[in-house]
Amino acid sequence: MINRYARPIMQTLWSDQNRYNRWLDIERYVVEAWEHLGVIPQGVADRLKKATVDPARVDEYEKTFHHDVIAFINAAGETVAPEDAKYIHFGLTSTDVVDTALSSLIRDSLAIILDDLKKLQDVVRELAIRYKDTPVMGRTHGIHAEPTSFGLKLALWWLELGRDYERIDRARDTISVIKISGAVGNYANISPDIEEFVAKKMGMKPAPLSTQVLQRDRHAEVIAALAILGGTLDKIATEIRHMQRTELGELAEPFGEGQRGSSAMPHKRNPVMAEQISGLSRILRGYMVPALDDMALWHERDISHSSVERVIFPDATTLADYLLDTMLRIMQGLTVNTERMRENIDLTGGLVFSQKILLALVEAGMTREEAYKRVQSHAMAAMKESSPNFQERILHDPEIGKYLTAEEIVALFAIEPYLKEVDTIYRRIGLID
Amino acid sequence: MINRYARPIMQTLWSDQNRYNRWLDIERYVVEAWEHLGVIPQGVADRLKKATVDPARVDEYEKTFHHDVIAFINAAGETVAPEDAKYIHFGLTSTDVVDTALSSLIRDSLAIILDDLKKLQDVVRELAIRYKDTPVMGRTHGIHAEPTSFGLKLALWWLELGRDYERIDRARDTISVIKISGAVGNYANISPDIEEFVAKKMGMKPAPLSTQVLQRDRHAEVIAALAILGGTLDKIATEIRHMQRTELGELAEPFGEGQRGSSAMPHKRNPVMAEQISGLSRILRGYMVPALDDMALWHERDISHSSVERVIFPDATTLADYLLDTMLRIMQGLTVNTERMRENIDLTGGLVFSQKILLALVEAGMTREEAYKRVQSHAMAAMKESSPNFQERILHDPEIGKYLTAEEIVALFAIEPYLKEVDTIYRRIGLID
Amino acid sequence: MINRYARPIMQTLWSDQNRYNRWLDIERYVVEAWEHLGVIPQGVADRLKKATVDPARVDEYEKTFHHDVIAFINAAGETVAPEDAKYIHFGLTSTDVVDTALSSLIRDSLAIILDDLKKLQDVVRELAIRYKDTPVMGRTHGIHAEPTSFGLKLALWWLELGRDYERIDRARDTISVIKISGAVGNYANISPDIEEFVAKKMGMKPAPLSTQVLQRDRHAEVIAALAILGGTLDKIATEIRHMQRTELGELAEPFGEGQRGSSAMPHKRNPVMAEQISGLSRILRGYMVPALDDMALWHERDISHSSVERVIFPDATTLADYLLDTMLRIMQGLTVNTERMRENIDLTGGLVFSQKILLALVEAGMTREEAYKRVQSHAMAAMKESSPNFQERILHDPEIGKYLTAEEIVALFAIEPYLKEVDTIYRRIGLID
Amino acid sequence: MINRYARPIMQTLWSDQNRYNRWLDIERYVVEAWEHLGVIPQGVADRLKKATVDPARVDEYEKTFHHDVIAFINAAGETVAPEDAKYIHFGLTSTDVVDTALSSLIRDSLAIILDDLKKLQDVVRELAIRYKDTPVMGRTHGIHAEPTSFGLKLALWWLELGRDYERIDRARDTISVIKISGAVGNYANISPDIEEFVAKKMGMKPAPLSTQVLQRDRHAEVIAALAILGGTLDKIATEIRHMQRTELGELAEPFGEGQRGSSAMPHKRNPVMAEQISGLSRILRGYMVPALDDMALWHERDISHSSVERVIFPDATTLADYLLDTMLRIMQGLTVNTERMRENIDLTGGLVFSQKILLALVEAGMTREEAYKRVQSHAMAAMKESSPNFQERILHDPEIGKYLTAEEIVALFAIEPYLKEVDTIYRRIGLID
Repeated sequence: MINRYARPIMQTLWSDQNRYNRWLDIERYVVEAWEHLGVIPQGVADRLKKATVDPARVDEYEKTFHHDVIAFINAAGETVAPEDAKYIHFGLTSTDVVDTALSSLIRDSLAIILDDLKKLQDVVRELAIRYKDTPVMGRTHGIHAEPTSFGLKLALWWLELGRDYERIDRARDTISVIKISGAVGNYANISPDIEEFVAKKMGMKPAPLSTQVLQRDRHAEVIAALAILGGTLDKIATEIRHMQRTELGELAEPFGEGQRGSSAMPHKRNPVMAEQISGLSRILRGYMVPALDDMALWHERDISHSSVERVIFPDATTLADYLLDTMLRIMQGLTVNTERMRENIDLTGGLVFSQKILLALVEAGMTREEAYKRVQSHAMAAMKESSPNFQERILHDPEIGKYLTAEEIVALFAIEPYLKEVDTIYRRIGLID
Repeated sequence: MINRYARPIMQTLWSDQNRYNRWLDIERYVVEAWEHLGVIPQGVADRLKKATVDPARVDEYEKTFHHDVIAFINAAGETVAPEDAKYIHFGLTSTDVVDTALSSLIRDSLAIILDDLKKLQDVVRELAIRYKDTPVMGRTHGIHAEPTSFGLKLALWWLELGRDYERIDRARDTISVIKISGAVGNYANISPDIEEFVAKKMGMKPAPLSTQVLQRDRHAEVIAALAILGGTLDKIATEIRHMQRTELGELAEPFGEGQRGSSAMPHKRNPVMAEQISGLSRILRGYMVPALDDMALWHERDISHSSVERVIFPDATTLADYLLDTMLRIMQGLTVNTERMRENIDLTGGLVFSQKILLALVEAGMTREEAYKRVQSHAMAAMKESSPNFQERILHDPEIGKYLTAEEIVALFAIEPYLKEVDTIYRRIGLID
Repeated sequence: MINRYARPIMQTLWSDQNRYNRWLDIERYVVEAWEHLGVIPQGVADRLKKATVDPARVDEYEKTFHHDVIAFINAAGETVAPEDAKYIHFGLTSTDVVDTALSSLIRDSLAIILDDLKKLQDVVRELAIRYKDTPVMGRTHGIHAEPTSFGLKLALWWLELGRDYERIDRARDTISVIKISGAVGNYANISPDIEEFVAKKMGMKPAPLSTQVLQRDRHAEVIAALAILGGTLDKIATEIRHMQRTELGELAEPFGEGQRGSSAMPHKRNPVMAEQISGLSRILRGYMVPALDDMALWHERDISHSSVERVIFPDATTLADYLLDTMLRIMQGLTVNTERMRENIDLTGGLVFSQKILLALVEAGMTREEAYKRVQSHAMAAMKESSPNFQERILHDPEIGKYLTAEEIVALFAIEPYLKEVDTIYRRIGLID
Repeated sequence: MINRYARPIMQTLWSDQNRYNRWLDIERYVVEAWEHLGVIPQGVADRLKKATVDPARVDEYEKTFHHDVIAFINAAGETVAPEDAKYIHFGLTSTDVVDTALSSLIRDSLAIILDDLKKLQDVVRELAIRYKDTPVMGRTHGIHAEPTSFGLKLALWWLELGRDYERIDRARDTISVIKISGAVGNYANISPDIEEFVAKKMGMKPAPLSTQVLQRDRHAEVIAALAILGGTLDKIATEIRHMQRTELGELAEPFGEGQRGSSAMPHKRNPVMAEQISGLSRILRGYMVPALDDMALWHERDISHSSVERVIFPDATTLADYLLDTMLRIMQGLTVNTERMRENIDLTGGLVFSQKILLALVEAGMTREEAYKRVQSHAMAAMKESSPNFQERILHDPEIGKYLTAEEIVALFAIEPYLKEVDTIYRRIGLID
């Protein structure tokens, strides 16, 4: 758990205390199930509700046993009557408890992340609607391409966050399984009915088949969904960083009263939140390596995955939550400089309308080949000027004059046509009616 | 494309010729769509059916234009009449064609992989049914745990391959979108209707919103699904490699007449196919790195992803197909040594039944703590013997004798109880009625 | 910092307190350097020795400034007289301090790791010498190949740990540079002499050229060296896990009095330390992803690397230290079952001597082709028997009898020839004189 | 081998023909060594010089033997007299040949890469000298920081390429070892003298100890060095892409006569070479995953690494060579727009000199705290203007007037002080005398 990048909700969820409590719940459900089967006397499960686990006590026992579950059983057991305590862990193997608890904790952490995502989506959606008709320069390769709507950028993010939601939601489904199937998964000492009972109590399903553990493709799918979410957030953050560049000045992330961008340079206002998102998303991506390496466990299980998962599941889910919250704060306080967006479109004296000229020439009968060469040569010449005058050059080309009148040419230098389908798109994706 | 590990079906799919043909299809569909809109005269699309593309010709043009689509347009254009040729690429930007084609090629390659998976699943399913009641040692940490059924191992693989199927199938869905939306994705020079028309022709859907390109979370999801499939195959291969070890001798992958395991050691029969699967799955896993790095493109696109995808999509899908085919051949020719499996269970003189003794003692009234210590001490002592006699030790422990009769003890050393739920499991997962 | 896998030495090194102390040292050295240049009055640096930093105070200030260095300057400043405090950070930019401190902390952590490595090497070296002449089955593909010496396995590890030592030592060199060169690395507000002075104080060197930060190829080299170390430790751990398998029983990692291998199965003695090493080494490998992604910072720096490094440097070095210590404890308490090693060699009735027969036949005049086929066919037949009798089969082959006498054949079934060069090797690598 | 991104020199090096030739060389050297030991009759090695290997013939044999080295021995053997052929591979195990050849091919490929690096360094060095005194805006977080020299950017790259050179050179050293030590590395059937002899012939060294193979930490070190090189090239490419952005316009990569940036937008001149470098460097980074996973081979070797290495070594070295060549072509044709660099510095009306004002105020006696707040508030106000007038604001602040005269203030708005140490730096790194 990386405290600097952890919000309290995740710190609590992944605390030792909470994990032990979850173990205790499972142990109690199992006892309850045995009671139903008549193997354990009625009333034990009920009395076990009073059991508690002190993490410090578990630590002490672990020093002797070198086995956390046995330490836990002892620590929990001593908080209830010995005749009840002896039924804790009855018929179970450690991973019945550990793996079931891990699944349920991951499920819960993903629920938090899905909540975050929903909140972020809502804010981005609102921004998309607000800036639906705001022209902004569309850029490809970092080079001006054609004008577009700033709202479309936001709508695109909103849609991608929606795909992330689906991926994470499916991964939550995939991980929402438990296993109480014994040492090698064949229910040698426990009935499948017990697993069924506990699963119901926990709002999950029994894995259709397990070994000593659940199969780790499920866990890899979770990490993959989070790594891809990291990719989405990095993309959005990168766009904000680009648009906040001094030369563009179109966006700025929130900058608090009293905040200092640089200890040396008082004029600095840096996109540090977005940069942090870019950085931390790399760590999320890196977790794919151990997550995939964990899959090929030996036979009915080896325990190599366990130390990995103690690290990557708390850390990956906590980071994802933190990144989503950071992005939410950026979006909520985002400064949008629409005038600067407009000025930047005009920066190149109409160069960005070159495709319009090209297409008009082709429609008017010039061959595509010829039209391309001619328009490109004017464009390249204009780009060498300090204040480019692309429109003038087109107007004065006699060959072009044979196909298009001056009026027709001037009309081609207009932003509106680039936004003409925006409403269609917004309707298609359900952002307007 | 790694020829050594590429089957012809994938080599053909990812050939230059096939890619250019796909481009040509798309160009023709677009022309047809324009015809419907009345912008291009009727009949052009029909005449363009005669157009062909010679990859060598594209290469030549590319030397001049340094742009593969423009080279392609010229190469295709010269195979039809100039008055038709000029409509090729009308109103399009390159990636309208390239990205749409890439999606459709990935979709097709995933269809092949899904076919492979289905075939492999069928063979594994059959094996699972055949070996339903075959006892095998269950091992955890590489150490004998408790007996189980060999069929359960196979059934577990069958189920996991099923989850891989679903992941890949969903990824195929995610990638089955096209984009014909212009230079920055706002349909400035082309109507969404054209995109709709072409999508229908190709059996795909328009992306709800795109920039110059489709968003790369879709592509990352495909690679993630394949990387996880690689993890599954590595797991199965690793199990086979373990079980083929000289000391276990329970399985052997097929070994051809005349094959040589080693140029130096004539006695060697090595699990080389399984080892190759383990190896190549690492490469699949490695593709996650560039796939995730590709997501954060600049603004309405930068082209950095393009070179990456030219490598990783042909290679990842081709490798996945090759790995599945290799695994299929292993499964079809798998040697299963059921006697050896039985002998290995007996290797430790009954040690593996220790949990049964433990549970019987607890049920008979001994405290769990006491029972564990006593059974463990006999086990540890037995393990130091060259022919372990765990059962004898238990029979001669007077303290244990207070709780269990000799008859009861002997009855605990039986394999059958470990297989008692196998039929239940098989019914639950649908392998038997 | 992953507390479960962190030893106190590393927890202290990477504590907030220690980092702030390091920052304070650097600030004081800079003031001292300015004093030498006559810019700051004599005595300030001396009086700043009394400054302290309370991490909690820094946290408070950070809530206002959103900038950790400015928060630190305030927290440190208030512990000394205002007329001295104002010289703290004089002429510096934050990363002059932060990056210099990070380098020095990484250097110190690598020194701990190099110490660990040296200790581990010493124990492995001793074991290598002790088991120089202990025969063990050599295995390739998991299949018996030819006998070899157990000492050679250990000597191999000792040598590879030596290469890890060199890689980490070189990486320590690479990272042992400081930068006090201002906001964009051009010494606009500070003299290179100051950097030179501070570097000397810290036992490091000035980077020959920096931007606002040191270049991150240096940091990637450190992580790469640690990731490769992880690979080495995983290899050794994997070998131990293999050799501790029930069927091999040749090695066992230490198992404490009172320790429990399984809560359900009292007979289990599992290689859990080695498994943990295998697991955690995957996390080390995963850090390569963010470390490499950190390299392409924008212009004179963007801060995306910072959050990454706050995580991966403490974690990677702490894990490396923990893994080395765990491996040390395994080696110190390693159970070596030399009889079992000997028994396993004999498991296949002489099959493993097949190459000797092959070579003897070729030397005696049989073609290699013919010899291979003949020996292989006997081997394959023997492998199908439950107690293989390969030697008998060779002795009774009349064709072989034409080339080799029975005596010659029997002499070929001997372990000694496989160990004949062991002393030569040991001398070559300096393990014996 | 990715043909699109492979130069002929690497295609030839990694061709099947060349690999088989290398194998043949090794086989012949071994025979020669045996001749020296008197085991093989004199003259055989000499006559084997006439042996050739036809890859197609090897392919045919491999269909029968499923073993490439045995196929190779047969294919080579049939091109010489049978009495000589029988000595091919005498006393060897396959990997003696394969692993030794792989090392030597990697070594040779790294030599090509080191040559490329040297060439690239030379061009960058020249550029660094040419642009030593060219002012350019220094940017941190994408935001203007302080002016610096464009030459320093280039010098920084030159130095980092030098570190890459050292890393790759050391990795070449690490991989320049051979192994001819038999099936499990103990020289059971071959003398260490033979290995020594062959190593000398090949200009390499014997590994001090091997198993059936060389240990894969060596190979991982090579891939790590190449992955880090990829990081360096990505960094440089990213800088070029940034500086070629329409809004900056400071650099442009070469753009050929007749080249087309976009099929739709004739005005586009895109940094496609640099973008390709960014993309392909991701693939290089991704190879770390399989390279590290290859390290933990089982016992004296398993063959899982082999398929991996058949892919990643040709591909990684070929890509590295291609990337270096592409970067060389960019540097050789780089357009540097020094006027635009100058204009961009002035873009913010002097804001970038804020640190100078801050420091002057502190030196003149204002507290740092007060100075920071005052300067920052003017900066923030100026940044909101469309033509920022930061200098005016400072001149009119009466509080500042108490510490600095108007003349002193105006003098602080000068670029020269930012370049004052450039010569010192250049001398320090040896770029000028």
